[in-house]
Amino acid sequence: MNKGGSGEKKAVVLLSGGLDSATVLAIAKAEGYTCYSLAFDYGQRHRAELEASAKLSQAMGCREHKVISLDLRAIGGSALTDDTIHVPEVESEGIPVTYVPARNTVFLSIALGWAEVLGANAIHIGVNAVDYSGYPDCRPQFIAAFESLANVATQAGVEGRHLTIHTPLMKMTKAEIIAKGLSLGLDYSATVSCYQADEQGLACGVCDSCRLRKEGFSTAGIADPTLYQE
Amino acid sequence: MNKGGSGEKKAVVLLSGGLDSATVLAIAKAEGYTCYSLAFDYGQRHRAELEASAKLSQAMGCREHKVISLDLRAIGGSALTDDTIHVPEVESEGIPVTYVPARNTVFLSIALGWAEVLGANAIHIGVNAVDYSGYPDCRPQFIAAFESLANVATQAGVEGRHLTIHTPLMKMTKAEIIAKGLSLGLDYSATVSCYQADEQGLACGVCDSCRLRKEGFSTAGIADPTLYQE
Repeated sequence: MNKGGSGEKKAVVLLSGGLDSATVLAIAKAEGYTCYSLAFDYGQRHRAELEASAKLSQAMGCREHKVISLDLRAIGGSALTDDTIHVPEVESEGIPVTYVPARNTVFLSIALGWAEVLGANAIHIGVNAVDYSGYPDCRPQFIAAFESLANVATQAGVEGRHLTIHTPLMKMTKAEIIAKGLSLGLDYSATVSCYQADEQGLACGVCDSCRLRKEGFSTAGIADPTLYQE
Repeated sequence: MNKGGSGEKKAVVLLSGGLDSATVLAIAKAEGYTCYSLAFDYGQRHRAELEASAKLSQAMGCREHKVISLDLRAIGGSALTDDTIHVPEVESEGIPVTYVPARNTVFLSIALGWAEVLGANAIHIGVNAVDYSGYPDCRPQFIAAFESLANVATQAGVEGRHLTIHTPLMKMTKAEIIAKGLSLGLDYSATVSCYQADEQGLACGVCDSCRLRKEGFSTAGIADPTLYQE
């Protein structure tokens, strides 16, 4: 395996193709990382994200882009992967039905495997504790626990090379995230956030994710570049 | 999601189809768990394991068996998934080339997702610190770190329902594992351990995994029921 001995800083960046992950990629690049973007084809309804992810990776100069196929529908339990559960249009109390059980744990685990192969010592992920919609695996204590795990789970950890999980958006509001991305030159019209975007990537405008995104542009005082279905 | 309120004890059991995981399943059943077996089609060379896993699950009375497809070959880095790396016939120093980066982390993460959907509070995995061949993700400190992670990563954890990672083989020798399985009535001829078994499930007899298995039967003083290629 490549131990990254050249001093080059390598990061695996989870790039769903949404607003948050695109901003994380812009931040990782600004920090001087050589970036390797990772997306998942996990049976999600919002597949337009995957196309957005590949285009963003190329446009933003990632060295490599991987899409890992993983059928989380086989496990079920979420409106995002289970056709029998309806995507809600209004916010509910507690953990929402759009929560995919252990999704971030699975995604970070696969990112960890790739980081080990690459000799990367950083993984960047766009989780957020402000707009996190009640997902347990978007909380700071989850990220801290995963970083501890990562450093005993791998050859790099055994050899004392520390891997860090970067969550630059953790404490930012959606408006702050948008302002940060714009300051780094990010084109948000190329991102897709909607839970039920159509095949052209046009957003529904009514799901939780659309609502949070709309509010973010509004609060930031920025014209919303999102392409909607009507 | 099913919270398992009936008092029924449910466990997700990682069942590769090898000697160790079959023994773990026998132990989980003996402990009174209703078992849900989980196998992975991850591009491994030893695909005969997958057939053995499905047959063992049915023969041993699991309530459900799932095979999750996950292309770990896309990440590479191991002789077990990368055709350009040769499976060695002699033991080497340090972490061997058969190590699949972060494999147990990925497998346990997906098991965690299913456990959450089922309302299961146990995951059983056949890792072993004695014959572990130097894999970092077979050590007790890895399992402890994963259990900590599991309990902050999920809805169950947020609600205070503790999930335990069971590793009944951790401190057992291969001979002890075999003696335990036999005492529980396990038929080891139905298991496949070989890293490069052929399509009929016949073992090569020379890889690390075959060598450890052979030694186990020999030390236990039990006739080896394994079917070899010659």
